[in-house]
Amino acid sequence: MHTIGVDIGGTKIAAGVVSDAGEVLLETRRDTPATDVEAIESAVVDAVTELRATHEVEAVGVGAAGFVDASRSVVTFAPNLAWRDEPLRADLEARLGLPVVVENDANAAAWGEFAHGAGREVRDMVLLTIGTGLGGGIVLDDRLLRGAAGFAGELGHLRVVPDGYQCGCGNRGCWEQYASGRALVREAREVARSGGPMAARLLELAGGDPEALEGPMVTRAAQEGDLASQELLADLGRWIGEGAASVMAVLDSAMIVVGGGVSAAGDLLLEPARAAFRRQLTARGHRPEPRIELARLGNDAGMIGVADLARRR
Amino acid sequence: MHTIGVDIGGTKIAAGVVSDAGEVLLETRRDTPATDVEAIESAVVDAVTELRATHEVEAVGVGAAGFVDASRSVVTFAPNLAWRDEPLRADLEARLGLPVVVENDANAAAWGEFAHGAGREVRDMVLLTIGTGLGGGIVLDDRLLRGAAGFAGELGHLRVVPDGYQCGCGNRGCWEQYASGRALVREAREVARSGGPMAARLLELAGGDPEALEGPMVTRAAQEGDLASQELLADLGRWIGEGAASVMAVLDSAMIVVGGGVSAAGDLLLEPARAAFRRQLTARGHRPEPRIELARLGNDAGMIGVADLARRR
Amino acid sequence: MHTIGVDIGGTKIAAGVVSDAGEVLLETRRDTPATDVEAIESAVVDAVTELRATHEVEAVGVGAAGFVDASRSVVTFAPNLAWRDEPLRADLEARLGLPVVVENDANAAAWGEFAHGAGREVRDMVLLTIGTGLGGGIVLDDRLLRGAAGFAGELGHLRVVPDGYQCGCGNRGCWEQYASGRALVREAREVARSGGPMAARLLELAGGDPEALEGPMVTRAAQEGDLASQELLADLGRWIGEGAASVMAVLDSAMIVVGGGVSAAGDLLLEPARAAFRRQLTARGHRPEPRIELARLGNDAGMIGVADLARRR
Amino acid sequence: MHTIGVDIGGTKIAAGVVSDAGEVLLETRRDTPATDVEAIESAVVDAVTELRATHEVEAVGVGAAGFVDASRSVVTFAPNLAWRDEPLRADLEARLGLPVVVENDANAAAWGEFAHGAGREVRDMVLLTIGTGLGGGIVLDDRLLRGAAGFAGELGHLRVVPDGYQCGCGNRGCWEQYASGRALVREAREVARSGGPMAARLLELAGGDPEALEGPMVTRAAQEGDLASQELLADLGRWIGEGAASVMAVLDSAMIVVGGGVSAAGDLLLEPARAAFRRQLTARGHRPEPRIELARLGNDAGMIGVADLARRR
Repeated sequence: MHTIGVDIGGTKIAAGVVSDAGEVLLETRRDTPATDVEAIESAVVDAVTELRATHEVEAVGVGAAGFVDASRSVVTFAPNLAWRDEPLRADLEARLGLPVVVENDANAAAWGEFAHGAGREVRDMVLLTIGTGLGGGIVLDDRLLRGAAGFAGELGHLRVVPDGYQCGCGNRGCWEQYASGRALVREAREVARSGGPMAARLLELAGGDPEALEGPMVTRAAQEGDLASQELLADLGRWIGEGAASVMAVLDSAMIVVGGGVSAAGDLLLEPARAAFRRQLTARGHRPEPRIELARLGNDAGMIGVADLARRR
Repeated sequence: MHTIGVDIGGTKIAAGVVSDAGEVLLETRRDTPATDVEAIESAVVDAVTELRATHEVEAVGVGAAGFVDASRSVVTFAPNLAWRDEPLRADLEARLGLPVVVENDANAAAWGEFAHGAGREVRDMVLLTIGTGLGGGIVLDDRLLRGAAGFAGELGHLRVVPDGYQCGCGNRGCWEQYASGRALVREAREVARSGGPMAARLLELAGGDPEALEGPMVTRAAQEGDLASQELLADLGRWIGEGAASVMAVLDSAMIVVGGGVSAAGDLLLEPARAAFRRQLTARGHRPEPRIELARLGNDAGMIGVADLARRR
Repeated sequence: MHTIGVDIGGTKIAAGVVSDAGEVLLETRRDTPATDVEAIESAVVDAVTELRATHEVEAVGVGAAGFVDASRSVVTFAPNLAWRDEPLRADLEARLGLPVVVENDANAAAWGEFAHGAGREVRDMVLLTIGTGLGGGIVLDDRLLRGAAGFAGELGHLRVVPDGYQCGCGNRGCWEQYASGRALVREAREVARSGGPMAARLLELAGGDPEALEGPMVTRAAQEGDLASQELLADLGRWIGEGAASVMAVLDSAMIVVGGGVSAAGDLLLEPARAAFRRQLTARGHRPEPRIELARLGNDAGMIGVADLARRR
Repeated sequence: MHTIGVDIGGTKIAAGVVSDAGEVLLETRRDTPATDVEAIESAVVDAVTELRATHEVEAVGVGAAGFVDASRSVVTFAPNLAWRDEPLRADLEARLGLPVVVENDANAAAWGEFAHGAGREVRDMVLLTIGTGLGGGIVLDDRLLRGAAGFAGELGHLRVVPDGYQCGCGNRGCWEQYASGRALVREAREVARSGGPMAARLLELAGGDPEALEGPMVTRAAQEGDLASQELLADLGRWIGEGAASVMAVLDSAMIVVGGGVSAAGDLLLEPARAAFRRQLTARGHRPEPRIELARLGNDAGMIGVADLARRR
């Protein structure tokens, strides 16, 4: 039977009926009423009810950015929503009369790519979701790794530079400060501010204002052949590859999947990442090398993943 | 029934009959004929045969420093022994007529501490073996993590300092270069060479020659109250704690167990490690904190662990 | 007989009659007419005249933020006032008919704490005034250190990080950039901007706007138990302690007194400062360790100090 | 009347009769029996007795590398000699029947330059003795600064680089690790090891062996025009100047005197030091700038200084 996957983002709630083959059969959306706990739940209930009008489903999976406890019931903290120790599963099960599974959004997307995307043919996989920040999800031996208390896979907070850039987590030098869209924009604006000849195309795209530069402009300029932008993506790729080598020293997965908005840069990002990864991988030359691949499910990864997790609840 | 655990070290082979409660019932030792593949196997067979004269056993586990393939049959590379793609399991099973399991020594020790030592009451645990180098072993959800090709848990090669100290693995800035006996000795000798008042006790223990300083002298001096030695251990502890926080960003285990020769320094090492860990742990204050504890099985951890793995083969 | 102490700040002029025991017997205030040289002098004369109506005094001491020449007569430069080579002593003596002493405000506060505050029982003392910036005052062998040209004790401009943060003095890496209220706010806003869970309480106190965060909010949050704020204060304390160890390599005072607005954080600041200081002090273990204590006179330190200096003129 | 100054070095004891004008009237030397406490004292007594045979003296001053307590009686620690809490003054007064003053060697040399050398015309002066290490001595307002417990002027241990080179004092990044003969040799050998064209002259002077390079070879090559050597001295000079600017932020002396073996390089060292100093001095442009001058008394500074201190005891 089908299940429903719900992806609660900072601005939109997307819900879809997902088949056991990972197809999205029907989808609906709502705006996220971010600061109102009650309203978010109502929007989820409303979207699910709409989908159930035409499809019979056996369970609902809900993914959200935030810390989810080990029993996958309670969102302990969500940075962009109003939740603090929110018993989301119990509330939704009461209102929907269906089994509900709650999962962290990066974990959900990792599971989506593992079950129905780039990682279908491996048993161990790490997903790096590189958007504004850097999220991670880990699958080991066909199982999602949650950790003793649900905090596994916080890969963006691996420290890669002692006394490096300040991170919102309270530490300095987190991987996320070097391998994320935010990092790309920070570096690109620094280049643009200098006003040198290298910065010409970037400044043009930003309408002359360095502070108006955004990540997709860098990607576009790089794809058109702008050297500064290609170098910025290559630097970002290098950080991805070097950090991934550290993660592989811990996990030795078969595959690293790179998703999120920044991954739209494709090989301009992935080739430098692969080169740096090969150079840094421990025991390189004496081991099969984990592959680095692009994600395949795009923005649907979380919805598809959490629907599948609801099926296997 | 009992099993036999064999720990092949660089200088000694230790073999013991181990009960299902993790007790070593009988133990025997041989010198390691390090450069002769055939001779090492014969020494193992000889030791096992001696033990079987008095104890009936159902299987044999063999632990060795080196890379072991995912099927736990072949030692692909052993830095201190003569093995290159050595089919150790098949050879020993043929000569002993018993099931054999081969495992990396750090994994074996991790399993020993998990099954019968410091980690008995948790389901997820990381062992850090801090001797000359830094070895790691990971247990998740009651299972030893081997990785897609048997290379998981190479924690000593997590990069903690970009462009840091050169490591024998070919990279720079590996954790092992900052959190190991070798690191302790390097720093202690630097202090001793200067000849300042802080170095007086260390120089005395080393007979006046900074190059003669060894790790146990630092530990002894620290335990006697020598300030420089206590600071050296505290610096080492800080690196352990900060690196462990990065590992927990990936894994979120319930416990980190610290073993190996350097762990003899006890709280002089562990208290600074715990303080640094708490300061660096992602989402501290919003999660249960993994505990950092001393290993309990000492040098027997590998033998006990690999015997238990043979039982569960 | 009594003397009058006048503290000319950027917004307020405070004047008080001070007894030889360091008691403030009567106090009056005026707004600081910052950009008008003549008007500042008139405000000081006016305040002193008011106090003399009820108290007989023998001399007047005037403290101001700025460089004062070695003869304690001329303010050569005052960053926040209109003075450039202003002959303040001569002007005031002519208008008041009383002996006048002019002193830098940090020196005045140091002397106040030495004569009547935390340093009463020692002969050598350094005051660190940690407000927006970091000011210093030094007493050696019962005498205020002014230096060959009146520039001693500019401790905030000790360089602690080569190529560090840019300082308003034209150098980079000054101690003041790491151990001051301005540094605390810079770091706190960086944490807040990230929006992570660690930043929640800080953001709440700042009304959701990272740029609205101020130092006292950090102190308040830390005292309530907020972890991020406690860590920010601990980092600041570490810089205080490490810099103080460098100053002690030069001076070897008996005591370091920490005052200024940031010192309101008390032990949350001082304990990390003491720990870092002990770890960095040269010849630790072979010497009596200078103590680090909180200032006792609060905002009156400058007025009391400069009144005492006028008495000892 | 005359006094005797004794300078106890690691290999030689030099003793001289010194007039109140700072002239050395007669000098004698002994080898230092470094590891035998009793023998050192006997050698000093022997040398003093020899000098008294022809000159009447009123007191004896003794300078030694080590920590001397605030009462100038006891050597609490001497890194290169056998002294630990040695009551040198009492022992020598008993054996000589003359008043004795004990002083740290860098303080003694500072006083020598102040009383009879480069600092004769100022009231505040800092001596930097740049030999193998970096020693300091401070004179303020015509008085030698000893500090609350005798540890003032340990300028070599001002921290100039966080996490910099390890120092024998147990800290990292001490000024001495960047501005000393040891630093010069370390850097010169690194250049020589590279074997590049810049290193040709240095390697030639060292007989082809980088490890045989010593400081005087660098100075000689620089004076002959070798570019690499001039740059090495300029780098060392820069560190001297930058550190001196930090010291002046604390002290504001009228003069910084540079002595010790490395000062033989003269302007090749001093000009870069002065340039860096001027660039780093706080409030530059608004203050009289302390001058940086070469020492004038050479190796006799300590003997002359401690003899003068004995006179003023």
